[in-house]
Amino acid sequence: MRFEHDFLGQVELPDEVYYGVQTWRASQNFAITGHRLCPEFITALATIKKAAAKANMKTGRMPEAVGEAIVQAADEIIAGKLHDQFIVDAIQGGAGTSMNMNANEVIANRALELLGKAKGDYEVVSPNNQVNMAQSTNDVMPTAIRIASIQKTKLLISELETLHHGLRQKSEQFQHVLKMGRTHLQDAVPITLGQEFAAYADTVKRSIKRISRAMDNLFTVNMGATAVGTGLNAEPEYIKEVVRQLSILTGNTMVSASNLVDATQNTDELAELSGALKVCALSLSKIANDLRMMASGPKCGLSELILPAMQPGSSIMPGKINPVIPEVLNQVAFQVIGNDQAIGLAVEAGQFELNVMEPVIAYNLFNSLTFLTNAVRTLQQRCIAGIEANEARCRELLDSSVGVITALLPHIGYEAASAIAKEALRTKEPVKDIILRQGLMTADQLNVILSPAEMTKPGIAGKQYIKKIS
Amino acid sequence: MRFEHDFLGQVELPDEVYYGVQTWRASQNFAITGHRLCPEFITALATIKKAAAKANMKTGRMPEAVGEAIVQAADEIIAGKLHDQFIVDAIQGGAGTSMNMNANEVIANRALELLGKAKGDYEVVSPNNQVNMAQSTNDVMPTAIRIASIQKTKLLISELETLHHGLRQKSEQFQHVLKMGRTHLQDAVPITLGQEFAAYADTVKRSIKRISRAMDNLFTVNMGATAVGTGLNAEPEYIKEVVRQLSILTGNTMVSASNLVDATQNTDELAELSGALKVCALSLSKIANDLRMMASGPKCGLSELILPAMQPGSSIMPGKINPVIPEVLNQVAFQVIGNDQAIGLAVEAGQFELNVMEPVIAYNLFNSLTFLTNAVRTLQQRCIAGIEANEARCRELLDSSVGVITALLPHIGYEAASAIAKEALRTKEPVKDIILRQGLMTADQLNVILSPAEMTKPGIAGKQYIKKIS
Amino acid sequence: MRFEHDFLGQVELPDEVYYGVQTWRASQNFAITGHRLCPEFITALATIKKAAAKANMKTGRMPEAVGEAIVQAADEIIAGKLHDQFIVDAIQGGAGTSMNMNANEVIANRALELLGKAKGDYEVVSPNNQVNMAQSTNDVMPTAIRIASIQKTKLLISELETLHHGLRQKSEQFQHVLKMGRTHLQDAVPITLGQEFAAYADTVKRSIKRISRAMDNLFTVNMGATAVGTGLNAEPEYIKEVVRQLSILTGNTMVSASNLVDATQNTDELAELSGALKVCALSLSKIANDLRMMASGPKCGLSELILPAMQPGSSIMPGKINPVIPEVLNQVAFQVIGNDQAIGLAVEAGQFELNVMEPVIAYNLFNSLTFLTNAVRTLQQRCIAGIEANEARCRELLDSSVGVITALLPHIGYEAASAIAKEALRTKEPVKDIILRQGLMTADQLNVILSPAEMTKPGIAGKQYIKKIS
Amino acid sequence: MRFEHDFLGQVELPDEVYYGVQTWRASQNFAITGHRLCPEFITALATIKKAAAKANMKTGRMPEAVGEAIVQAADEIIAGKLHDQFIVDAIQGGAGTSMNMNANEVIANRALELLGKAKGDYEVVSPNNQVNMAQSTNDVMPTAIRIASIQKTKLLISELETLHHGLRQKSEQFQHVLKMGRTHLQDAVPITLGQEFAAYADTVKRSIKRISRAMDNLFTVNMGATAVGTGLNAEPEYIKEVVRQLSILTGNTMVSASNLVDATQNTDELAELSGALKVCALSLSKIANDLRMMASGPKCGLSELILPAMQPGSSIMPGKINPVIPEVLNQVAFQVIGNDQAIGLAVEAGQFELNVMEPVIAYNLFNSLTFLTNAVRTLQQRCIAGIEANEARCRELLDSSVGVITALLPHIGYEAASAIAKEALRTKEPVKDIILRQGLMTADQLNVILSPAEMTKPGIAGKQYIKKIS
Repeated sequence: MRFEHDFLGQVELPDEVYYGVQTWRASQNFAITGHRLCPEFITALATIKKAAAKANMKTGRMPEAVGEAIVQAADEIIAGKLHDQFIVDAIQGGAGTSMNMNANEVIANRALELLGKAKGDYEVVSPNNQVNMAQSTNDVMPTAIRIASIQKTKLLISELETLHHGLRQKSEQFQHVLKMGRTHLQDAVPITLGQEFAAYADTVKRSIKRISRAMDNLFTVNMGATAVGTGLNAEPEYIKEVVRQLSILTGNTMVSASNLVDATQNTDELAELSGALKVCALSLSKIANDLRMMASGPKCGLSELILPAMQPGSSIMPGKINPVIPEVLNQVAFQVIGNDQAIGLAVEAGQFELNVMEPVIAYNLFNSLTFLTNAVRTLQQRCIAGIEANEARCRELLDSSVGVITALLPHIGYEAASAIAKEALRTKEPVKDIILRQGLMTADQLNVILSPAEMTKPGIAGKQYIKKIS
Repeated sequence: MRFEHDFLGQVELPDEVYYGVQTWRASQNFAITGHRLCPEFITALATIKKAAAKANMKTGRMPEAVGEAIVQAADEIIAGKLHDQFIVDAIQGGAGTSMNMNANEVIANRALELLGKAKGDYEVVSPNNQVNMAQSTNDVMPTAIRIASIQKTKLLISELETLHHGLRQKSEQFQHVLKMGRTHLQDAVPITLGQEFAAYADTVKRSIKRISRAMDNLFTVNMGATAVGTGLNAEPEYIKEVVRQLSILTGNTMVSASNLVDATQNTDELAELSGALKVCALSLSKIANDLRMMASGPKCGLSELILPAMQPGSSIMPGKINPVIPEVLNQVAFQVIGNDQAIGLAVEAGQFELNVMEPVIAYNLFNSLTFLTNAVRTLQQRCIAGIEANEARCRELLDSSVGVITALLPHIGYEAASAIAKEALRTKEPVKDIILRQGLMTADQLNVILSPAEMTKPGIAGKQYIKKIS
Repeated sequence: MRFEHDFLGQVELPDEVYYGVQTWRASQNFAITGHRLCPEFITALATIKKAAAKANMKTGRMPEAVGEAIVQAADEIIAGKLHDQFIVDAIQGGAGTSMNMNANEVIANRALELLGKAKGDYEVVSPNNQVNMAQSTNDVMPTAIRIASIQKTKLLISELETLHHGLRQKSEQFQHVLKMGRTHLQDAVPITLGQEFAAYADTVKRSIKRISRAMDNLFTVNMGATAVGTGLNAEPEYIKEVVRQLSILTGNTMVSASNLVDATQNTDELAELSGALKVCALSLSKIANDLRMMASGPKCGLSELILPAMQPGSSIMPGKINPVIPEVLNQVAFQVIGNDQAIGLAVEAGQFELNVMEPVIAYNLFNSLTFLTNAVRTLQQRCIAGIEANEARCRELLDSSVGVITALLPHIGYEAASAIAKEALRTKEPVKDIILRQGLMTADQLNVILSPAEMTKPGIAGKQYIKKIS
Repeated sequence: MRFEHDFLGQVELPDEVYYGVQTWRASQNFAITGHRLCPEFITALATIKKAAAKANMKTGRMPEAVGEAIVQAADEIIAGKLHDQFIVDAIQGGAGTSMNMNANEVIANRALELLGKAKGDYEVVSPNNQVNMAQSTNDVMPTAIRIASIQKTKLLISELETLHHGLRQKSEQFQHVLKMGRTHLQDAVPITLGQEFAAYADTVKRSIKRISRAMDNLFTVNMGATAVGTGLNAEPEYIKEVVRQLSILTGNTMVSASNLVDATQNTDELAELSGALKVCALSLSKIANDLRMMASGPKCGLSELILPAMQPGSSIMPGKINPVIPEVLNQVAFQVIGNDQAIGLAVEAGQFELNVMEPVIAYNLFNSLTFLTNAVRTLQQRCIAGIEANEARCRELLDSSVGVITALLPHIGYEAASAIAKEALRTKEPVKDIILRQGLMTADQLNVILSPAEMTKPGIAGKQYIKKIS
């Protein structure tokens, strides 16, 4: 065991742990969720510590030996080591001070070890004075959240792009599958299944654009802001250098915020990213709902789509197959929307120079990104990729409907068409037969106008068209 | 024109208006929504002013002549007069001070008129000293919100009871309509349409119970709390009397809060009522969704239900009928859920001795109550009451399915049953035929077990049953 | 390795695992959150399996030997064993079928082992036919969610009661601490710190009542509903017995739902519990906000309260202490509100005979309960219990204010009092001196009326009082 | 009276009304909110009808005489006439069919009048055949919502720009006002009031950018999509022309959606705009909270800011002034967030080729835009413009604090600095005196380092600096 103290007193810690007194206090204070920091966040913290050490060496404020030890310790964490030493809870008071100190302490102690010193020998490398040099939780946390968010958002975008591609492929595969279009869940006019999947693809494309744009904001960071954004204790050359280092280390073009006070107290950029995820969730949930309805049946539903069977659907109903993949997508969408709500409340709760609710913002943002990435991958791989059209069923339903009547509107008017629709539904006589019987149009005209395939594109309307078919 | 002043200065007002300088200032300060106070709220304010005047007369603090004039002025407002003098915006700063002062000023000026005095002659009847005697916005507003909410909630409950009755009637009408039950939108096992409507009815019943319970909390008011709940400037006998008067005037058993400080600063009871409305909205929205799906078609959907046709469904598609009534219910549900969100944010924003966000709480609560009352009435009158079952279609779908296989589980086991289900779907051979062919059960046994009607109640399982049918 | 199959095919599983093919498929299909089921939920599933086995033995449908093995396997899980065999993700499609099957398979394989059979030898004990006998995911899941929720809610209520007690104690400790009451963050009239804490205590009390009431609904379960609530494959005597067994095993008075169809498809009771947690969160967040503001400073804030110092507050600002415990409470409140949002969306998404979104409902409800329980415990133990009043500071602020002027309202009127307030603020002359100088009241009268302590209770108003002090 | 009929039957209408049978039915069916369409929306509908008539004349499908009458009728509505004929409720079923038909019927009847015909003489100008020619509710509604949203968003952006300018001005006015920066509501390190207002200004600037970007998406419309996006009954040349006309009439560069099926069924662009409003609301609410806290007092609060007095703050507390303008801003923010929630639910509820919940989306989007525009204008004009700094108070608080200790961190280390901070708070001895007494630094050094003004910018750290001051 070793002893460590802070200005609240002394505590005893096991020799082998790399974290110190402040981490320990936080672990006692915040036993809330049982969830720790996600790997990308731990890595982001280490990356910042490395960048700061390099910048501080460059300005001459940090001795090379100490700086190099810090860099090496940080590199180990970036490589995935020592993550078990990050023991603080994901939701915590203190605006993430404990997360920052957890990183500071682990790196300080590992650096000490690398320098041949004992853990806790903070005269040489102190968590506060050296590892945290020219930094504050209030610039480290916002920057770490941004770096981790970027990394996770890129993964999401990559999965969305695969999904977009998958939906596009299906739209081509289904481009000749004619079916009834539905509005209000009521039979409307013909459409192709390919057109429907193309619409899904385009929605996903817009989500990608929206999320990308929100991610781009996050390249701007507030390193050097220190406590309240005024840059107290940070030299101008350090501020420039630490951001340059971050660009090198992350491979992103990181930029220093033009107003560090603003960038320290406001979290609207995180709300924007979460909002983009929410809109993506809304769109995906709509798609999942459509898939589940089109796959409903097999006998008592629409049965237009056949989703890949992923698992037995029931513990009691033999042979039942359920649309479990769209269902999990729906639930993740609900979660992302709920998380956005929590984020909104936290963003609004910023006060003066800081938003102390950043931990819960990060927790929800990271969860949304992770869950959504997994759900999108799952949707594409385990559902979209294997979807088949029940083409015969689509055609059977289409042929049974009277929705084609709409194509006659320019030719016989709304009122006459309504009467025919009513009669066709009542008598089950085909629309075409009624019109012919009433002498409203010729068979030749009807053959052209009432072609469902023609109805799925613009054109069959207006004077010119009537002339053409006369 | 007449002149009025407050401690910020003097303003000129048209002679004919009953409101005064503070109302005027508020109308200038808050041009936000364009929506004014709802009638029930204006009436509630007048009721409180009347109750307070009576209590103040009883304690001897208010001269009878003044008190009676105030009472008469308040009565006129309760009778629906002078509502056009309530000109302040529904969303306003100041915790409703301007709403309270609007009532104080209108009543003071009308009382002055009744006493043969000129409007604005506040020496005799002052909005602050007499009409607001022993009161503060901070007890008047919470109490007025409660009184108006109770009145509006009773209307909602009445409509919900009518809806409950209507659903119950339909469940009896449809009790013999056998159909396929669905889980995951997939064919499950038989059920009756009556059972489905009984479930809807029971959900509504629970909503009534939940909303009633939340309403009951609102009978407790904080009159006499004055500024911060300590009762400064209110005598104990006044506090008792004003609540007694409120009971008489409203016909409810109003109760004085046991802790007036608590009752002045907290709005959780309003959040609870809104929460009960939200749960009701969730339940109703689910019912509306089911109705829309069951009414989908007419040819390319489930077509199990026929909703009353309320209006042409399309400007372009002749003869189309849409489920417009469930659709409006869905939208009102979304609105109520959104309003609940706004209320939650406002409730959380209370600080110290007061929640200054009460106006936005009241605005949303009243809107939710009004919209929901109207939507529930509309649903019952224009949809539920006229719903018809498409009995033949229900039976046709049921007979086409293999869902009955579940009834065989206790007899042939999950695995054998799964294989039969799979074969039946593939070959379209009836389940019964496959079983007979395989010699698993006798025709007599199957006739009993595979009766859809039997499947809609417990019992056909287990050793006893197997013996019985052997 | 051993082989298992279902109707989708065969998979290879390690010999040592107790879960089977369906669990394995689910673990592949749903790699979403990385979070598994919470222990209370696993235990609830095992409890249900035990209750069902006992009921099935009683009705004679299940052989004693098999039943007893199932009971013993379930008991081991209830005792905390085999929890690592529950590998499915907390958010999953299929309405929890995979959770139910995970329990069915683990129990079946453990029962087989106890019977001296090989794992996977499902002829003797089958997950579907025996462990799931007379059950469906659609009654097991809602019931398991209820049982686990009750257990977790009881823990929360216990912590809330401790908090209530703690706040009550503080209200007594602080009952003589006079301070300025605040409305709109502006100086209002005197109050005691004890009155403020009593208000907090009463809010918590109402939350307990609300949550308890919502919990009580959950004693009603739908065991025996099976697939869609019609009770197919469940005998009436089984339904009665399984609920009786659940009462015995859980120690709660469990009741069978009067309408099993309703109880199977609707989740409004879960929304109600979540709603009660949300209102609790709103109330607690308001308290946390007040605490943080009253503890603001030490030099540039209100500084009326001294919160226990729990950890160094800053990585850069030496000696800084932050209100980290209220801050974590705020964040948990935001999370609970966000979770309620996700639950609402899921509740609305129920369709026909089932709500397939139950997993995400359970996930959020359990998280809310756990986080809130921990946060409430933390708040009481690490903050409320050690709060001290800065009594001198409270008095200093109070004495500097002109808020006492309100007590003069009944005696000199609103307008005169406003003028004095204005003058006092401008000239910094004490209110009392101005009144004496203007000859409005005598020193004796003022000594009584302007006593802050008197102002914290009703009484000093009205004619009688003026007479008394004349 | 005149008679009109549709395929549901005949109704009697007063001669003078311009709306027809379908509008009348809708007014009966949807008595929900009591709110009608906002003027911008009515105007947008008329603009579309005009654009369509012009396009249909150009393609030759509509006779000039009829087309010109329709154009003239539309122009009258655009000029503000006949708005009282738009009687349908803002929340309605049918996806806005009744809104579209309300416009169709009013324009048809007014056109008939202009042509010297009787109202209701639909042979000549029919609401469906002529006014709605080549259109469907399903392209008219999304397009009208976009046009009205753009118009309203421009107003909002204009007010936000004025606010941004106002905040920027204040940041310059206050650039020399030194004050204590606060994190966690605890004294942190010095900042200037100007820096704080500059941060507010920059937040508003980001909101403008975000909202503008979301608005730009709305220039893309789906006119010509007709019923389901396939363009049935719309000729390609019409589609091109109608959008060209819309550009001319609105002054915006309107664009035809590249995928009309997608543009007809999806509403994510509206969710994005609402999301941008939500983030703006979150940011503004944070600013309002800061203003209210800084203006707290006058004696028992921070009292750093003096907000303009807008109205007496209390009906009972004489002379009280409340921050009513920030308070109304907070409430509008809550409303916008709640509205966003309702919009999200509606967006998710789209099904297949249409989102029938568009009316509630439009209702909330328009309310959010209107309320926010008014609240932002109110904030700037009635609060920000007149804010004054209480400079002496700011300095007094700053000088009393020990926050300056942070500047010593690079020179004496975290631990020594912590001890001095603790001692200074305990003994009230100035930080500078303690350091001098302990001989840690010289008076000359301290004079430079402990200058609060220096602390509000980066630089005073590091080796170079220490050398410079040695």
